[in-house]
Amino acid sequence: VSLELRALAGLPEVRPGDDVAALVAAAETDLRDGDVLAVAHKVVSKSEGRVRDLDAVEATARARELAVRHDKDARAMQVVLDETAELVRAERGVVICRTRHGLVCANAGVDASNAGAPDRVVLLPLDPDASARGLRARLRTLVGVSPAIVITDSFGRAWRHGQCDIAIGCAGLAALEDWRGRTDSEGRTLHSTWMALADEVAAAADLARAKDARQPVVLLRGLGRHVTKADGPGGVALRRPLAEDLFR
Amino acid sequence: VSLELRALAGLPEVRPGDDVAALVAAAETDLRDGDVLAVAHKVVSKSEGRVRDLDAVEATARARELAVRHDKDARAMQVVLDETAELVRAERGVVICRTRHGLVCANAGVDASNAGAPDRVVLLPLDPDASARGLRARLRTLVGVSPAIVITDSFGRAWRHGQCDIAIGCAGLAALEDWRGRTDSEGRTLHSTWMALADEVAAAADLARAKDARQPVVLLRGLGRHVTKADGPGGVALRRPLAEDLFR
Repeated sequence: VSLELRALAGLPEVRPGDDVAALVAAAETDLRDGDVLAVAHKVVSKSEGRVRDLDAVEATARARELAVRHDKDARAMQVVLDETAELVRAERGVVICRTRHGLVCANAGVDASNAGAPDRVVLLPLDPDASARGLRARLRTLVGVSPAIVITDSFGRAWRHGQCDIAIGCAGLAALEDWRGRTDSEGRTLHSTWMALADEVAAAADLARAKDARQPVVLLRGLGRHVTKADGPGGVALRRPLAEDLFR
Repeated sequence: VSLELRALAGLPEVRPGDDVAALVAAAETDLRDGDVLAVAHKVVSKSEGRVRDLDAVEATARARELAVRHDKDARAMQVVLDETAELVRAERGVVICRTRHGLVCANAGVDASNAGAPDRVVLLPLDPDASARGLRARLRTLVGVSPAIVITDSFGRAWRHGQCDIAIGCAGLAALEDWRGRTDSEGRTLHSTWMALADEVAAAADLARAKDARQPVVLLRGLGRHVTKADGPGGVALRRPLAEDLFR
């Protein structure tokens, strides 16, 4: 198995209503079936208008109280609460939320960096799997090929420093590779080999991206065996249901 | 930025005392400075004799009780307890431990698959950073180049299904890439961009590995900007200290 990754060059700043698939097709003229495109959610969110200008946000008492306690902007905290189904932890300046999608992450995924304007924040897409399917379908229309799409964000981890990119949505890629019940090279049953393939794709893509450049899209070639014609169940398959959460 | 990954072919089964660096050098004759080698911890553990045969293990009452409750082998559970500093959660058949290294994972990293013999389990290396440094130094002696070394294992995640490979040890690679305080492409401060580079390397490498073949070592080329002459602080930098754990 061998694998190649490269960030697409020449993508412009994305604005609400922009056709991200058309921008990708213009930036990369050699897209192939079997390719995987890892797309930073920020460009998807912006194209979908999932941004909020803090000037237009009124903070509730709860947002103001949390903002003071965790040294944050009260209006930004209000946006975080608007995106949050459950506050998982709020301690020592860190606010960890379960989003309405069921994703557990800092600040419900609300982010002020690279937002396109001062006092603007970018939210996660409303339905990242639908965004991935939409991008894939649009690429098929535009250039006649169907690379798999993985929509990524950087998440922290409970017991580790730093962040890794993970897949908040995907289409055309098996999000999980299930080897449970199959056998290892000695014929022994593999007990717990259930790989989060789409998350590993997201993490790998981040290595090919220059953080200070505008490189939201990374092409991965060599994963064709995992790319499916059908869009499949998407990134929702990676979210552990609330009932299985051992850390509430 | 572009990046190439491939699994090394032709590595034999590793036994206690084997020279893993020599096996790697034999399998890959084009190693270069600036390369990164991701090495599944299992071959390192085996070469270091970090295996236990369950026939020689006597289970304590506590191990027997946990084994019954979680449907596990009492002797294997004893080995898990021997590796454990703190039992983080034991619920519904899942036993999550903080190891003596400060790694939080299922079964303290003790694994029966690909162990080399029936009723044998493989443990994590005693000091994975020291293992990485040792491998790197030995490669330098054997072939005169110093690729960075990342020693990997597959870890589950609190809120996500499936596992991702992470870095339990490393040498010659900055484990974390710190962009905090630097600015984005619009000149705005990046608030929380602190990437777990070594974990992303581990995850990427797993994509290039065939699970049913013997491919413990993956070569990553194109990350030279992150490879350092010094071995550096290692994978220990990725472990969140107990005092910062919000999920005890």
